[in-house]
Amino acid sequence: MSKKEIPYKIYLKEDEMPKQWYNVRADMKNKPAPLLNPGTHQPMKAEELEAVFCKELVKQELNDTDAYIDIPDEILKFYKMYRPSPLVRAYCLEEKLQTPAKIYYKFEGNNTSGSHKLNSAIAQAYYAKKQGLKGVTTETGAGQWGTALSMACAYLDLNCEVYMVKVSYEQKPFRREVMRTYGATVTPSPSDKTNVGRKILAEHPGTSGSLGCAISEAVEAATSKEGYRYVLGSVLNQVLLHQSVIGLESKIAMEKFGIKPDVIIGCAGGGSNLGGLIAPFMGDKLRGEADYKFIAVEPASCPSLTRGKFAYDFCDTGMVCPLAKMYTLGSGFIPSANHAGGLRYHGMSSTLSQLYHDGYMEAVSVEQTEVFKAAQQFARIEGILPAPESSHAIKVAIDEAMKCKETGEEKTIFFGLTGTGYFDMVAYQKFNDGEMNDYIPTDEDLKKGFDGIPKFEGNEI
Amino acid sequence: MSKKEIPYKIYLKEDEMPKQWYNVRADMKNKPAPLLNPGTHQPMKAEELEAVFCKELVKQELNDTDAYIDIPDEILKFYKMYRPSPLVRAYCLEEKLQTPAKIYYKFEGNNTSGSHKLNSAIAQAYYAKKQGLKGVTTETGAGQWGTALSMACAYLDLNCEVYMVKVSYEQKPFRREVMRTYGATVTPSPSDKTNVGRKILAEHPGTSGSLGCAISEAVEAATSKEGYRYVLGSVLNQVLLHQSVIGLESKIAMEKFGIKPDVIIGCAGGGSNLGGLIAPFMGDKLRGEADYKFIAVEPASCPSLTRGKFAYDFCDTGMVCPLAKMYTLGSGFIPSANHAGGLRYHGMSSTLSQLYHDGYMEAVSVEQTEVFKAAQQFARIEGILPAPESSHAIKVAIDEAMKCKETGEEKTIFFGLTGTGYFDMVAYQKFNDGEMNDYIPTDEDLKKGFDGIPKFEGNEI
Repeated sequence: MSKKEIPYKIYLKEDEMPKQWYNVRADMKNKPAPLLNPGTHQPMKAEELEAVFCKELVKQELNDTDAYIDIPDEILKFYKMYRPSPLVRAYCLEEKLQTPAKIYYKFEGNNTSGSHKLNSAIAQAYYAKKQGLKGVTTETGAGQWGTALSMACAYLDLNCEVYMVKVSYEQKPFRREVMRTYGATVTPSPSDKTNVGRKILAEHPGTSGSLGCAISEAVEAATSKEGYRYVLGSVLNQVLLHQSVIGLESKIAMEKFGIKPDVIIGCAGGGSNLGGLIAPFMGDKLRGEADYKFIAVEPASCPSLTRGKFAYDFCDTGMVCPLAKMYTLGSGFIPSANHAGGLRYHGMSSTLSQLYHDGYMEAVSVEQTEVFKAAQQFARIEGILPAPESSHAIKVAIDEAMKCKETGEEKTIFFGLTGTGYFDMVAYQKFNDGEMNDYIPTDEDLKKGFDGIPKFEGNEI
Repeated sequence: MSKKEIPYKIYLKEDEMPKQWYNVRADMKNKPAPLLNPGTHQPMKAEELEAVFCKELVKQELNDTDAYIDIPDEILKFYKMYRPSPLVRAYCLEEKLQTPAKIYYKFEGNNTSGSHKLNSAIAQAYYAKKQGLKGVTTETGAGQWGTALSMACAYLDLNCEVYMVKVSYEQKPFRREVMRTYGATVTPSPSDKTNVGRKILAEHPGTSGSLGCAISEAVEAATSKEGYRYVLGSVLNQVLLHQSVIGLESKIAMEKFGIKPDVIIGCAGGGSNLGGLIAPFMGDKLRGEADYKFIAVEPASCPSLTRGKFAYDFCDTGMVCPLAKMYTLGSGFIPSANHAGGLRYHGMSSTLSQLYHDGYMEAVSVEQTEVFKAAQQFARIEGILPAPESSHAIKVAIDEAMKCKETGEEKTIFFGLTGTGYFDMVAYQKFNDGEMNDYIPTDEDLKKGFDGIPKFEGNEI
């Protein structure tokens, strides 16, 4: 299909939108390892998980056989409020880079949460509502997930309690206010509302918090009162399942216009975006029906795939959650304070970890000043101010396009633009003022994190 | 057409997007009064205007005969990066309100400037570039226009100097950083960079600035150096012309689905959004081909249409600009400090003023706590956090829908959702904390403003 025939933005029609999520685990020969009970080291049973998570979500978490799962009508209805998201042909960027490559991105930032997180938030809130719960608890770091969940809960009239990493709570008051506008209760973490929070505060009086710590508080809050469950915005299988709507929409749009990506690039923190973006394409590859090069991009300051260990580890600082087998930097690892934006989780989705381990996916790490340079360049050319997280993928997409310029290859590059940077202007200001710098953890730094990985039979690192 | 057949969001295809702007003045029997030279009180000649504005824009400013003006290809290309904007059917809002009314809105907030302002920014920057200029100057209040212009200038590689009302500069550092990310120079106004700025600083040492004052500075900056012109984000005929793309896209989308609005509602500050939104519909009405009820919604704290005088007045505080005939509160009028958001200009587009004067349009004013209540309600139901400005239209659209609930009328209500509120969280926080209040100017307050309207023959108020 000639360049002229592909529009700048491809929007699916409503009746072309996917009506089922795709579960990539069904097509994996080596399934992701099960969650383990941290006490017994035995696989978590559904009943155990149901104390923390909604029933239907536990089913989805444990289901590694059904390739397709119906999206309930109520969720489809909510999706139609802000989806389909556009598949964008980056004509302007291609022209400016003078590359023979064709560049596409799926833009998930055009909703008030500012990111793809809403895709799973509405699903999780829906199942909580269906179970008759009063509300849900969660943690948020950069704030996108908390905002998304607040929006979903407001829509379904559910209570929403968000534990927000203290440093974000203080540095991102506007994120907090968006959540409050949607009726959520926002608590800086660590707080004195939970046992684990009080313990952490006693041990580390001046701490500015961490994602792992906020998770522990949110889990405790959910399990210690009637009618609440905990929900999580990344890492889990269920989240990747819901986020598959990103990849499915992209694939339908591409097939409609005869586009076949060669390289698929996504930023990777806990894996929610990357897992969703690549899901149906990875399915093709797993079934031997097509081949794509997948690149996970992570920050050099929090390099779980590129420098982590593939082992069972705690998902949270308070060690109240099940153990997950994943690429991890250790649950005690906290990225340097000068690291801006999200992608700061110590681990990585078990599904993506397994796929990476089995060689289906590559990973690279990039430094943040380079990331912000790419972000600024992209903003000026494509007119969208990207989130710092998303800009990791932009950086590598531009690198790939420049390689094509050298070689003359007309590759089709596809990346996920997960969100917008409107609430990240403190970081942009640092960059604009030339005050941003990079910090890459030393091997010594990493060793401290690795030392916290639990030792038990079969969990050698 | 049945409810089921109309999607939640209607996106035009690229080849359905308008290729010409619509100039409503061509269909007006009573043309808007010409700009006057403030010294001679004679209509401004093209040569005089060209000292301040770009040549092609002057032509558009003075053209009240051509109904359609071609949109240059380069601008169409830029439009395709972020347009078409969706025409949204507010199914969720209708359901929640239990109204028989059908509610639609045109959402212009899905671009990084966060508003419709980009539609005119790219046009004005394009003509400046075509004229071979080095750059443009402008003022910005709430920051949407400055952001939009920065984006357009970055795309076309033009210098962009923004004079930002000092109180906004200080209270909205993130807006400032977005503009800087796009390469603009942002100066708090009043500044010591211009004569008029120094004069105002000397007379009012602690002033936090005003839009009228920032305009004076930007005009002086443009006219006092080589290769620069001044551009403006509202009020002028040329701006309404460019913004007609909003109404044109809406009308095409509506005709495609057999939708005929009964009531069309827009917020009104200087008139850029309202004028663009209603343009082609107003054309129908002026030509007697259709009838619609148009409602301009303005803040009770800055009520130019509902309480202003229809007279020639200064467009800026420094009185360096031409005189415009419009509904005005006087160029010295500044809304109360507790007024949040934009819509704080003392005057109103001459075109809209004339249409209002001739009875083609109604106007209402609303108080800001009611506006924020509507904003919060809308955000929770429709999933979009609206700008305070846009929320004026939301408030009246909900009122109209509730009237239909009482009467049982199945009216079709259409309003303009001009932008998002991501940079307005200080105001939302005030509302969330219950600390927002209203201030309506007294007749005495207004009288002071009216006293500043220039007196000369034919300008009785």
